[in-house]
Order: sequence, then structure tokens, then C-alpha cells
Amino acid sequence: MSLSVLPEAEAPSGLEARRRQILNAARLCFSRWGFHGASMGQICAEARMSPGALYRYFPSKDAIIEAIANEERLGAQACMAEMEGEGPLAERIVRTCVSYLEAARDPETGGLMVEICSESLRNTAVGQRFAEIEATVRGAIRAAIMGGMRTGEVDPAIDVDKVVTILFGLGDGLLMRLQMDRHVRPAELQPYLLRIMNVLLKEPAQ
Amino acid sequence: MSLSVLPEAEAPSGLEARRRQILNAARLCFSRWGFHGASMGQICAEARMSPGALYRYFPSKDAIIEAIANEERLGAQACMAEMEGEGPLAERIVRTCVSYLEAARDPETGGLMVEICSESLRNTAVGQRFAEIEATVRGAIRAAIMGGMRTGEVDPAIDVDKVVTILFGLGDGLLMRLQMDRHVRPAELQPYLLRIMNVLLKEPAQ
Repeated sequence: MSLSVLPEAEAPSGLEARRRQILNAARLCFSRWGFHGASMGQICAEARMSPGALYRYFPSKDAIIEAIANEERLGAQACMAEMEGEGPLAERIVRTCVSYLEAARDPETGGLMVEICSESLRNTAVGQRFAEIEATVRGAIRAAIMGGMRTGEVDPAIDVDKVVTILFGLGDGLLMRLQMDRHVRPAELQPYLLRIMNVLLKEPAQ
Repeated sequence: MSLSVLPEAEAPSGLEARRRQILNAARLCFSRWGFHGASMGQICAEARMSPGALYRYFPSKDAIIEAIANEERLGAQACMAEMEGEGPLAERIVRTCVSYLEAARDPETGGLMVEICSESLRNTAVGQRFAEIEATVRGAIRAAIMGGMRTGEVDPAIDVDKVVTILFGLGDGLLMRLQMDRHVRPAELQPYLLRIMNVLLKEPAQ
């Protein structure tokens, strides 16, 4: 979308605020009714904007989905940057996991991940878009684990593929589960997750 | 549904086979398009039956969903019965988890759990129906862990709620994940899951 189509009278901060308002409304609608189920009309109603006003920001539902995918990509990059910090690898991975769970815990849009997962399983265009982002995160975690093998923090005998599968399963599953078990806070799970991570980074006896 | 509306000429085995055929088709359609998205017409097409023939078995989509919920309930009971067997508690829980993952690994209907989860998050009637089944399974696992405290297999200091949340998160997440990472077989994860279960049943140092 070119900036030239935006109303000239609005300051950039106003533009950004309205864009944010639309994306928040869209996340809520997609979370409630799915990417296919939610209509542009519902997003307009939720954002309290007329279709004419909304279309000046996003020409289509696909453009909104692409903007959300881009936000998710930036969020994933921020998480990965956080993982690069100081301290033992297991602690860094768990810290990243807890941040991710905290960020996704909004009761109104927490269902979005389930919808993304549903799209990924159906291998739709939306699913493929989000699968690309996940592949990047997966690559970064894989690289961090391989790095840990070189520094002696990770048992070189572990099967990295299986460990990453379990780790992603645990992350996705907890994200869903914490939407339902709302009395459990992600930070409270940290000591348990750290112990799990420590056993995952050592090869189990056969 | 009363048996009296079924065609008298068919033998019970034939009736059961047709019912199975409809439920398999419905699982596939719900998995692909969601409980709301899938239509009776799509289910008829997938089952290769006319609407008239299908309606003699199930008068509505709700009746089909109820039959699937009932199958899930029976499946959950069978899983729980398996957990009651011999051996250390952690091994029994992991064995149950792996059986559940193996059973749900059908590529065509594996998405059904994601759709059920989506319904549960939206707290729809379908979601509530499946949430009841899950509450039973959760109660059984909770009881098994409390039993383990009495026999000394489980550290009495653990927070059972958090352990059960992590366990269910891991189960649901792996179920989704193994649909996508199709090269990983549930049984291969067993040694990792057993080590995870062992640390979960001991209170982590604060």
C-alpha cells in the first residue's frame, strides 16, 4: 500500500494509531471466527470505522493478514534476539518461551494461534505464510542448540529434530492451554520448563 | 436416534458399517472446514451417500457431532483404562500419551483436535461438549498423580494443577505438531517424554 493514498491531514502518529486499531480489531475477529470466517464488515464494526475509511489503510482482507504476519515475524525476531543474551542456553530458551507465552496470553486474541495452526494443517496460503515465519524461528532455535553442542552445554548425542519437535509442541500446546487454564501464569511454569529443557538437552538412556 | 427409523432389511453389521462410513466422512470434513464450515452436503459427498440415506442415520449435523463426541469419550475412557495398568506411574502416563498421539495421527482427520480446541476457546456448544470429556480425563490423571503421592512415586510438594497444565499442553501441542512434522513418530519420542514426566513428578528447586 502506498502512503500517497492516505489522507494528508493526518499526522503519522494518527495514521499509525488507526492502523493499530484496525489490526487489533482484525486479530480479535480472526481469533473469534477464523481467517475465512471473519468478514471485512465485522473488522470494520470492531474497529468502529466505515468500510471506506478502513479500505484506505488495507485494500483487502489479504492485506490485513499480511500485515499481521509481518507483525508476527517481527515479534519472532525480537524473541530470537532475546534468546541470544547471556546465561546458560536452557535458561535462555525457557526465558524466550515464557516471553512468547506471556505475549500471546491476551484472552481476546489468544485464539489466533489456534486459527493459524488450523490454516497450517490445511496448508492454505495463510497457513503457508505463517509456516515460513515458524521455519525461521525453528532454524534459529536449531542453530542455538547446535551452538550449545560446540560449547559443551548440549549433549552431542541428542536428536535435535526430536528435541525441537517436542519444544515446539510444548510451546504451542501451552499457548493454547493457558488460554483455557487462565489461573496459571506462564512465569509460574518457568522452574518446571527449565527442568524439562535441561533433560531435553541430554540424550536419554535407551 | 431411534432404531425404528432404520431400514429393516439391513443387518446390524451393515448399519454399523454405514454409520462408521458417515462418521469417518464427517471427521474428515470437520477437520478440513471446521465444525461450522463443513456442510451436511459435503459430508454426504465424502460418505458417497444421498442426503436422504444419511438423514436416516443422523437427523442433523449436531447429531453427528454428538456421535463423534461420544466416540471421543469412549476413546478417552480406553486411554484411562490403559493408564490403570502395571508399572511405574510416569511410564503409565507416557504410554497413555503415546497411544493417544498414535491414535490421533491420521493425516486426514488429525486437524479435528485443532478444530475442537478452536471451539473450546470460543466456548461454543460444541466446545463445551468436548470440554466435558477433557475434564473427565483431567480428573483421572489428577487422581492418578494424587495416588502416586500416597505410594511415594510422586513428590507431595509438586503443584498438581501446574503439572497437569504442562502435561495437557504437551499432549495437545505434540498432537498438532506431529501432524506437521510427519517424519517424527510418537513412539520415538517415548524416552524423551519419560524423562520429562519424571522431572514433572518432582518439585523443582526454587
